[in-house]
Amino acid sequence: MTDKKIYSASTTAPVNIAVVKYWGKRSVKLNLPTNSSLSVTLSQADLKTHTTAACSSTFTENSLWLNGEAQDVSGARQTACFRELKALRKKLEDANPSLPKMSEYYVHVVSENNFPTAAGLASSAAGFAALVRAIADLYELPESPTELSKIARQGSGSACRSLFGGYVAWEMGQAVDGSDSYAVEVAPASHWPEMKAAILVVSAAKKSVSSTAGMQATVNTSALFTHRACDVVPKRMEAMKAAIENRDFEQFAAHTMADSNQFHAVCLDTTPPIFYMNDVSRAAIRAVEALNTHEGRVVGAYTFDAGPNAVIYYQEKDEEKILGFLGTLLAPEVAEWAGKYAKVTPEGYDNGSFEALKDGVSRVILTRVGEGPIRTHDSLIGADGLPRKR
Amino acid sequence: MTDKKIYSASTTAPVNIAVVKYWGKRSVKLNLPTNSSLSVTLSQADLKTHTTAACSSTFTENSLWLNGEAQDVSGARQTACFRELKALRKKLEDANPSLPKMSEYYVHVVSENNFPTAAGLASSAAGFAALVRAIADLYELPESPTELSKIARQGSGSACRSLFGGYVAWEMGQAVDGSDSYAVEVAPASHWPEMKAAILVVSAAKKSVSSTAGMQATVNTSALFTHRACDVVPKRMEAMKAAIENRDFEQFAAHTMADSNQFHAVCLDTTPPIFYMNDVSRAAIRAVEALNTHEGRVVGAYTFDAGPNAVIYYQEKDEEKILGFLGTLLAPEVAEWAGKYAKVTPEGYDNGSFEALKDGVSRVILTRVGEGPIRTHDSLIGADGLPRKR
Repeated sequence: MTDKKIYSASTTAPVNIAVVKYWGKRSVKLNLPTNSSLSVTLSQADLKTHTTAACSSTFTENSLWLNGEAQDVSGARQTACFRELKALRKKLEDANPSLPKMSEYYVHVVSENNFPTAAGLASSAAGFAALVRAIADLYELPESPTELSKIARQGSGSACRSLFGGYVAWEMGQAVDGSDSYAVEVAPASHWPEMKAAILVVSAAKKSVSSTAGMQATVNTSALFTHRACDVVPKRMEAMKAAIENRDFEQFAAHTMADSNQFHAVCLDTTPPIFYMNDVSRAAIRAVEALNTHEGRVVGAYTFDAGPNAVIYYQEKDEEKILGFLGTLLAPEVAEWAGKYAKVTPEGYDNGSFEALKDGVSRVILTRVGEGPIRTHDSLIGADGLPRKR
Repeated sequence: MTDKKIYSASTTAPVNIAVVKYWGKRSVKLNLPTNSSLSVTLSQADLKTHTTAACSSTFTENSLWLNGEAQDVSGARQTACFRELKALRKKLEDANPSLPKMSEYYVHVVSENNFPTAAGLASSAAGFAALVRAIADLYELPESPTELSKIARQGSGSACRSLFGGYVAWEMGQAVDGSDSYAVEVAPASHWPEMKAAILVVSAAKKSVSSTAGMQATVNTSALFTHRACDVVPKRMEAMKAAIENRDFEQFAAHTMADSNQFHAVCLDTTPPIFYMNDVSRAAIRAVEALNTHEGRVVGAYTFDAGPNAVIYYQEKDEEKILGFLGTLLAPEVAEWAGKYAKVTPEGYDNGSFEALKDGVSRVILTRVGEGPIRTHDSLIGADGLPRKR
C-alpha cells in the first residue's frame, strides 16, 4: 500500500543586514564570495519569512508559492537547494530503510513575508534560509545550521547568514567546491541584546542593476575592488568580531559605516558605475553624522545594502536620542513615535541638508537583533497539500 | 626723483577640466600632489579670467579685486605667489640695475571672470593662472610656463595646468621642495582641435567640503586611496597621453569616465564620506551611457570635479548627436540650441531615469579645447591704479 500521507514542517526565518558587506563572487554557480562578510540577524517580530515545506507521494511536481503567488522553481538556485537537501535525505533513508522515501517525493513550499517584498529588505536571504530550514526539518536532517548554510548559500549568498541568530560571519573559504564557505555564529543575540536598528525605507524605482550582475561587473572592472577584498575586509572581519566580542559600539559603528561606504565606492568604481544610494540615502548619512557630532560620541551607525534604504544600528540606551532626532527629521505620519520622545536638534542643524528625508522616507521599521529560524506548528499548507486559504 | 609710474600688464587665462583627477596632497603647504593629473584646457571664448596686474611706488599695499569686490590677500596662497614672483623679478633687477625696482613695489591685481564664480567651474585655477601670468608679464620674467606653473601651483594646485592650452599634464614630481612638480604640454589644442565640451551646470547648495579639506580627509582615511594614487593613476597617465597622441576618443573617453568615477569612489571611501555628485549628476551619467549604447560607440565622455556639474567631452563630428540628445532631455529654455538639431531618442529610453536632468540642469555651456593664457592690452586698472569703472 502506497504511503499517501502529506508530511510537512514549518519554520520562520529572519532577515540579516550585513555590517561587513558581501560583494563579489569567485564562483557565480556556487555563490562563492570573494570576501568574508558579517551580519546582524534582525528580530522576526518585525521582519520574517514564514515557510511551510511539504512532500507527498501524491504531489506531481515541485511547487513554490510566495505571498500567494506561484513561483518558478526551475531556476538553478532553487534546483540546487532541492537537490542537495534530497541527497541528504536519501542518505538517511539508505541507512534506515524504515523511513518514508521522502527523497523520492515532490515538494510543495509555501512562503509568506510579513513585510513588503518590494521594499528591498533582503527578502531573498530570509526566503532561502526559511526554505532550506523548513525542508531540512521536513526531512529530519541532523545537519548543523553551518552545514545547512552551505545549501542556503547556493540559493542566495547572504541567505547562509540567516540560518543563525545574533551576530553571524560568512567565512568565504578557499575550496573550489564551496565546502568551507559557510556561516558561523560569532555571538548569539543574547551576548549583545541591546543592539537595535531603525530601517528607513526609501521609495525608489526598481533596482536598475541586480546584485549578481552588479557584483560581477565590479569584480571584472573595478581597479580598487581587489584591494578591498584581499586587504581591507580580512582585517575588518577580525576588528568587527572583536568589537562584537567586547560590545564596543564605537568600533562596531566605525567599521559598519566605513564598510558600507567602501562597498558603494567599489560600485562607483565599476564600469559603468553602479549607484544604489540616492540623495535621500546621502541625507540619512549626514543626519547620522550630525547626531553623532551633536552627542560627542557615536550613537548611530548607518549601513546601506544594494538599494537606497538606510539601516541605522544603535544601542537601546540611545533609543531616545535616535528616535527623538528621527522624529524631528521625518514626516509625522512616518515617525509615528514622534510624540513619545523629546525632539533632538543638533547645533548647526541645517534643515536643507536633511529635507530630502522628509519626502523620501516612506516608512520606518524599528527592530533589533534577533534569533535564527524558529520552528512553528503554524502550517501554511492545507490537508490538500496546497496553500491554505487565509 | 622717485619713479611714480604705474606699470601694468593684462592677460586672460583659461579654465581646465581634468580627465585624470588631482585628489590628495603630499604637502598642503606647497600643494604637492599624491598623483599626477591631466586636463583639457577650455576655450577662453566661453570661460576665462581676465586679470590686470599693476605695481607702483605709490601703492601702499598689495590689493586684489575679483569681480569688483576687494579680496583678502593675506592668505598663504596669495602670499606665496607674490613672494616667488617678486623674488624672480629681484634677480632680474640685481642683474640689470637700470630696471625699475618693481620688486620693491606693492602690487594691485584686478580680476574678472566671464562666468559666475559660484557655478563651481574651477574658477580658482583660471584665477591663479591669470594672476601669475599677469604679474610675470608685468615683471617681464623670462621664465617658461612650466617654471611659472610651479608658482601657480602654490596658489591652487590645478592652476598650474591653466598656464598651457590644449592637453596638459601636471607631473607630480618627487622633490620635497616641489621643484619637479609642474605642468607640461602633452599636446597643443591644434593637435586635436575637434575636442568639444558641454558643461551641464547643476544647481546645488554651496560645496559642503572644500577641496583641500576633502583631499586630506581622503588621504588620511580612505583604505583604497593609496592603491589609486600609486597603482592606478600612473598607468592611466600613460594611457591617456597615448590616447591624446593618437586622437583615440574611445580610449580617452574610457579613461576619463573611469577616472572620474574612481575619484568620486575614493571620496565615498573617506570617513566621513564626501559626496560631490547628486541625483542630477547620476542622471547625466545614465544619459551619456544611454547615448553611447544607442550609437553603438562612445560619442560622449562624462567627468565630474568636486561638485555636481557634468562636463561631457565629445568630438565635433558627433555634435549633432550630443546636442540632439541633450535637447530631448533638458528643459527648452536651457537647451537653447534644441531647434537646430534632430532629437535623439535611444531605444529603451526611460524618461524616468533622466527626469532629474530637466529640473536640475540650470544652464549648459558649450565650449571646446582652447589656448593657454593670452596677453591683452585691455587693462582693468585705471590711471589711478584702481579698478576701472565698467
